[in-house]
Amino acid sequence: MTRPLAVAVAGLGTVGAGVLALLRDNAALIAARAGRPIAVTAVSARDRARDRGVPLAGLRWYEDPVALAADPGVDVVVELIGGSEGPARALVEAALRAGKPVVTANKALLAVHGAAIAELAESRGVPLAFEAAVAGGIPAIKVLREGLAANRIQRVAGILNGTCNYILTTMREHKREFAEALAEAQRLGYAEADPSFDIDGVDAAHKLAILAALAFGRPVDLAAVHVEGIREVSALDIALAEELGYRIKLLGIAKREEGGISTRVHPCMVPAGAPIARVDGVFNAVVAEGDFVGRIVMEGRGAGARPTASAVVADLIDLARGRHTPVWGASNGALDPTPAVPMERHVGAYYLRLMVVDRPGVIADVTGVLRDLRISLESMLQRGRAPGEAVPVVLVTHDTEEAAMREALTRIAALDAVLERPALIRIEPL
Amino acid sequence: MTRPLAVAVAGLGTVGAGVLALLRDNAALIAARAGRPIAVTAVSARDRARDRGVPLAGLRWYEDPVALAADPGVDVVVELIGGSEGPARALVEAALRAGKPVVTANKALLAVHGAAIAELAESRGVPLAFEAAVAGGIPAIKVLREGLAANRIQRVAGILNGTCNYILTTMREHKREFAEALAEAQRLGYAEADPSFDIDGVDAAHKLAILAALAFGRPVDLAAVHVEGIREVSALDIALAEELGYRIKLLGIAKREEGGISTRVHPCMVPAGAPIARVDGVFNAVVAEGDFVGRIVMEGRGAGARPTASAVVADLIDLARGRHTPVWGASNGALDPTPAVPMERHVGAYYLRLMVVDRPGVIADVTGVLRDLRISLESMLQRGRAPGEAVPVVLVTHDTEEAAMREALTRIAALDAVLERPALIRIEPL
Repeated sequence: MTRPLAVAVAGLGTVGAGVLALLRDNAALIAARAGRPIAVTAVSARDRARDRGVPLAGLRWYEDPVALAADPGVDVVVELIGGSEGPARALVEAALRAGKPVVTANKALLAVHGAAIAELAESRGVPLAFEAAVAGGIPAIKVLREGLAANRIQRVAGILNGTCNYILTTMREHKREFAEALAEAQRLGYAEADPSFDIDGVDAAHKLAILAALAFGRPVDLAAVHVEGIREVSALDIALAEELGYRIKLLGIAKREEGGISTRVHPCMVPAGAPIARVDGVFNAVVAEGDFVGRIVMEGRGAGARPTASAVVADLIDLARGRHTPVWGASNGALDPTPAVPMERHVGAYYLRLMVVDRPGVIADVTGVLRDLRISLESMLQRGRAPGEAVPVVLVTHDTEEAAMREALTRIAALDAVLERPALIRIEPL
Repeated sequence: MTRPLAVAVAGLGTVGAGVLALLRDNAALIAARAGRPIAVTAVSARDRARDRGVPLAGLRWYEDPVALAADPGVDVVVELIGGSEGPARALVEAALRAGKPVVTANKALLAVHGAAIAELAESRGVPLAFEAAVAGGIPAIKVLREGLAANRIQRVAGILNGTCNYILTTMREHKREFAEALAEAQRLGYAEADPSFDIDGVDAAHKLAILAALAFGRPVDLAAVHVEGIREVSALDIALAEELGYRIKLLGIAKREEGGISTRVHPCMVPAGAPIARVDGVFNAVVAEGDFVGRIVMEGRGAGARPTASAVVADLIDLARGRHTPVWGASNGALDPTPAVPMERHVGAYYLRLMVVDRPGVIADVTGVLRDLRISLESMLQRGRAPGEAVPVVLVTHDTEEAAMREALTRIAALDAVLERPALIRIEPL
């Protein structure tokens, strides 16, 4: 057996400790699959004294993660610090400049600076692997970039944030409002004290930007992603969705359209019978559609120390075996310059739920707005009657352009009889 | 861009024509992802005159597929002839001996002769790729062998034969008996005129033997696979399964047990809520459980020209990029000699359905047999009453060893009041 692959790990949070535990627990099996042992030789973290449940004796310790890049006893740098700026970015860039392959779980860094980092990696001829950056233990990046590489991908979509999926699942199963479900997720450690990164869709947008770049072989373009989170999803809309045969999921969707690629993250109504509708709790799922392969669905654990470690070490085994792939699947010069399609041009069906005063003429006013904008209705649902009081009214449209729908929303919200901001949820025929 | 990768295709049936169509339709995209063009330069098939819907002009034509191995203008041989013996085997061995990488969709060849072929490939240092051999367009081999490579796999299971899944789905949805559903599958081209290879579980066994070798890093061992097909599944059992909250699927299951690896293909009752229970029609699914990644589920099209071509060309792209992996994930010397566990030692719950004469004492006789063999019952279901006539009785056991269950079956079948051969279906807690 050849010399071990010497690995430095920067960041010893739960994922970093998981990587160390995995490399120790499955060392023999990993050596067989990698063709050589994989050994951690150096680490960097903030607090040297903290007990992480894995022994660190014998490893070189660095206060400054960037110093790992210069250690001549390190073959590969694993970056698990996180964040699109600061030490994570500095370390990744320093390692690539030093000619050391990098494995990272950092979706923010790749979504924000991925284009420049991919160019740096290519210019130095150094591999950069990031299976752990999207969908945790699901090998979504390998499947898109290698397994489906022969396909012209038409769509890639997924449940990419376990926190949001847990909250939406809890709201549906226990008929809770968003704030209650969020508080429970926080108690269980599924949501951060400041949850905005997850619940506002930012994390899912980072992952979608990466998936879209891989699926369509184009430079990562986070700015083009339309992002809405789940704060405004109500228990009422989840119950009404159920009545209509849908489930509400926060999806990231990248799609090849006439004129370019659309990328968006927002709550969606998906048919209750679709495979992705049943992916509940903290699980993630990725759906990809290619012109030859048809539709592939993958599901699994999207986060957590052990699934994420599985992805990080798979990348290390690829590196040990010499299996290299350009960051976005093709060299930077061969990427496709297909433009982004703005959200205003999205076409699809919409669910619109209003609270209106139950009095004659209200429905006529509302449907008049839709008629004026040439928006046609598939169905309308009015629950119960309570003359003079507030009742919910649901309108489901046929395919409509987003720009028209936004205008309709503005006009309808301005009607006297409409009592609060209407809820708008896009219907996705997955 | 570098010189094209010159490919020879042996076998121009639907899959071979699909590979040619894919390489033509997506040539630019494939060249970008492969880092160089992939060009077919030679082909071999029986009937030169047949119209296959793809142009063959300019390609060298060989009557004898084995001659492709000797063509100096061929870098890679794609074997799509099929069958474990004859020209397919001769071509694969000749190509490897000539130092030419091989891509094959041939599960029978790998299941029967995979150990020797892997040794030949390794001894010559030549890659052998076979993504298309299992689960069609689902990149199950890449996921198991590379994506989950860091995991100690506990179980891999799947719906591996689309013909059987189509028949079982039709039986359930349209309340048909097996023979009717088979005839419909034959009319639609989902089953062969001689369907035994599919419906007797042989094809699924080939695929399971390959998956087990990959999952557990051990030499392929087809002889160890316990195989039962779906001929004896009845509409009555499908309806009773539904009542009990199960679906009947033909599964291939490989599992790490105390003392070794069990591999089996047989009809299973799976909980109706399990992801795999909803994979219907010609779709395939693969479930893998690893110690770090947890459970990963993949589904997609398991057969057909286009999904299979997607897998074949993914292998070609891997070869063009220089991404190589040993056949079973580790070199032959590093494979795990974990023994096989025989079916008699399987432990699980069983569904047993009898047709009995409805008269006093029958149930006491049946349950007496189970008591004598220390088999404990979870539930019993007797439908309707018809004194003196035949009625179905369903018994569901707690975990029981296969050997005891077989003995019980023999004794129960010998009881006077038991009218036909009892139906036995294993319950699988997926």
